Amino acid sequence: MYDYDLLVIGAGPGGQTAALRAARLGKKVAVAEAREPGGTCVNRGCVSTKTLLHSSSLYRAAAEGAAVGVHAQGLRADLGEIFQNKRRVAQTLSQGVETMFKSAKIALLRGRATILAPHRARVAGPEGECEVTAEAILVAAGAAPMRLPLPGMDLPGVLTSEELLEGVDHLYRSLVIIGGGVIGIEFACFFSDLGCEVTVLEGLDRLLPMLDRELGQNLALILKKKGVRVCTGALVERAEQTDGGLRVHFTVKGKPDFAEGEAVLCAVGRRAAWEGIFAPGLQPELDGRILKVNERFETSIPGIFAIGDVASQTQLAHVAAAQGQAFAELLCGQESRVGMDIVPSCVYCRPEIAVVGLTDGEAKARGIPVKTGKCVLGGNARTLIEDPGRSFMKVLAHAETGQILGAQLMCLGAPDMISQISEAIANHLTPRQLLLAMRPHPTFEEALSEALEDLANKLEK
Amino acid sequence: MYDYDLLVIGAGPGGQTAALRAARLGKKVAVAEAREPGGTCVNRGCVSTKTLLHSSSLYRAAAEGAAVGVHAQGLRADLGEIFQNKRRVAQTLSQGVETMFKSAKIALLRGRATILAPHRARVAGPEGECEVTAEAILVAAGAAPMRLPLPGMDLPGVLTSEELLEGVDHLYRSLVIIGGGVIGIEFACFFSDLGCEVTVLEGLDRLLPMLDRELGQNLALILKKKGVRVCTGALVERAEQTDGGLRVHFTVKGKPDFAEGEAVLCAVGRRAAWEGIFAPGLQPELDGRILKVNERFETSIPGIFAIGDVASQTQLAHVAAAQGQAFAELLCGQESRVGMDIVPSCVYCRPEIAVVGLTDGEAKARGIPVKTGKCVLGGNARTLIEDPGRSFMKVLAHAETGQILGAQLMCLGAPDMISQISEAIANHLTPRQLLLAMRPHPTFEEALSEALEDLANKLEK
Repeated sequence: MYDYDLLVIGAGPGGQTAALRAARLGKKVAVAEAREPGGTCVNRGCVSTKTLLHSSSLYRAAAEGAAVGVHAQGLRADLGEIFQNKRRVAQTLSQGVETMFKSAKIALLRGRATILAPHRARVAGPEGECEVTAEAILVAAGAAPMRLPLPGMDLPGVLTSEELLEGVDHLYRSLVIIGGGVIGIEFACFFSDLGCEVTVLEGLDRLLPMLDRELGQNLALILKKKGVRVCTGALVERAEQTDGGLRVHFTVKGKPDFAEGEAVLCAVGRRAAWEGIFAPGLQPELDGRILKVNERFETSIPGIFAIGDVASQTQLAHVAAAQGQAFAELLCGQESRVGMDIVPSCVYCRPEIAVVGLTDGEAKARGIPVKTGKCVLGGNARTLIEDPGRSFMKVLAHAETGQILGAQLMCLGAPDMISQISEAIANHLTPRQLLLAMRPHPTFEEALSEALEDLANKLEK
Repeated sequence: MYDYDLLVIGAGPGGQTAALRAARLGKKVAVAEAREPGGTCVNRGCVSTKTLLHSSSLYRAAAEGAAVGVHAQGLRADLGEIFQNKRRVAQTLSQGVETMFKSAKIALLRGRATILAPHRARVAGPEGECEVTAEAILVAAGAAPMRLPLPGMDLPGVLTSEELLEGVDHLYRSLVIIGGGVIGIEFACFFSDLGCEVTVLEGLDRLLPMLDRELGQNLALILKKKGVRVCTGALVERAEQTDGGLRVHFTVKGKPDFAEGEAVLCAVGRRAAWEGIFAPGLQPELDGRILKVNERFETSIPGIFAIGDVASQTQLAHVAAAQGQAFAELLCGQESRVGMDIVPSCVYCRPEIAVVGLTDGEAKARGIPVKTGKCVLGGNARTLIEDPGRSFMKVLAHAETGQILGAQLMCLGAPDMISQISEAIANHLTPRQLLLAMRPHPTFEEALSEALEDLANKLEK
């Protein structure tokens, strides 16, 4: 007889969803969490950056308010208060997780968990140690930021996103961001909105290199217009201390260059955080750097499962949550109805970016014949009013079946529109079927009708 | 032989769409417009109010910015500049319409059109008069605000929305708004955001009486919290001049009361604007106050058609545009694929409102068995960050077939999310089919997954 049916290690989006779903399906569940419930997402990740961006966007909008008749003299951003507000939001959400656990009768064990053997773990927390047994153990421990293994990357002032999110007491005059992925870009927006001189160094040939080419290229233009220095193809070599701060040396096509900043943000990716969770001698198989799992999310050690960033190629909160739900449903002998192959992704720059499914380039590479419909939002009324810079929508469909296969949206409101396309992909709909919906005026999503109409016309040619 | 295949009277959303579609399908088209191309929507309607609300929202957000670490001292709204910005946006869009007409080779005849006989009209403009002939004439003349036929409603300072949108040179200390529909509510938000004392008088038992009860009730609470005086069941009797402005007398359940304001906005509806368009002796049949048309949008006079507010029970820009498209397709012998029965509707208060399809109450009244799924966005991360006040989503499905029939969304971003539901209604989808889409985190639309999950569970019980 075990203490619990399920022990979950980690109370982030994945662990939390798995625990709640399993409890709802009748399992006795405990969750071990060494830090705050809510995980990286709530406390040091996507929610935190969005809270910061809410403040910096307001600052920028107020600074530019004269154009729309709103004058803010003596405008001032208080970094301490901005980070305090971030903590307030995180705490509210974190407490919300605790409340949900309580009402679902899930035991929250505060401390760092180590799996001693299948079905057995130790949780060492501020109030001492305990051992618990469970029929199944789920590792949902997330990921942690990586540092570049280069000279100078351990200097004070070279920070990871987690360190930066712990709080800044003043606005940096200047910041060098290594990494032009989602995290790097969102911090570039935050700091440049507030008037900080930002340099972004990206090793590949464009910003957001994992997304459709047009997105990163447009974003670079928009950031440059805001005064951000964007260097792509920039191979970082080392950082060094200077009188005023830090200097990062890099090369572009072999040509040496450098960027200076009061601080350096190292946003080069996150590594699965399974180290220390397995007791010596207990070595689950890996798939590269992540835990290898089967289709039931079970690791190579029977009874030990893993979901989320610790075991997933795609490091996204909603993927972890979907895996958590699917894991719990499978564990409880249910058929899981969670779709795993249609994964949207968002970037909270301005205008926002949201994508799902195939890009033009991917379709070409995979030999799938596609047509692309496009709408540039220059004539879209709400875009004209809010003036976020060049905005566009692209929608792809299979050239023969007409089924929608993907979309790339770069416009205000994009993250709340992308599911129109995800739903279409999941239900094998065509542009004409989506066009049956009359889109309201004046909205951003009106433009989607134009992109779909363009696509439908191309398909019908 | 006629001068044109089609003469359109009115270059608003309906007329413009009809003209462009017909031209694209090969017709020779002229459009007569007495004022600015773009119609009420662009120049004196929905785009204008959204532009004003963009400024007032920024002002309010900046005024409340200390809560998120942004301090704006000496904050000032310049009404002249705010209205100037509104004109700028309107002019840009209006010129956009002209440009589209030009590239589609549509003749723009500036002046007031009078239909002299089927196929024949006179256009009298600043540069003189001309007569044109056309195989088909389309009346897309829109609607104009009504005044209440009550004592004092012609006093200076009692304004319609059009008059108010012409420009205000200073911020009213106080404003009485007669009418708690969409126009009244959006102006209440604009003026109260800027610090004006606003009273809203609505004759029926709640704000937004044409929408689901819960929306208007919640909105009243939110507006009251902002300091707006909301009087429902208020029957206006008369207005009178006072020393400081105007006093509006009304009764609630027979009990006399009054509200005072520097100005009064009369937002009690808009009347189809067909008067003066038909020459004496040419009398098309009416359906109440609107022009009666058949399923091809033809009036009782052969060869004369009508779309949009002049002939539609639903006065919405996107309905007019959809009718314009359908009209042109039918005129050109095409089958129209425009769906007309699924009509979304939005209100740009804060949080925003967007609805489509059936409400609970309507379903009950029509004997349709439905289930309702609901999500309150208290735990939604982006809602917590932006703090717009109580937000919720309701989705309805047929209790037996499980098909989605409607939704009421009151949350930030609602107008850009409602088409997810419109598409589901149009394509007969169920909540489970919409749940196949993984919604990204952190977004407002995540909450839609919760409402859909709630609905799916209720349907499966």
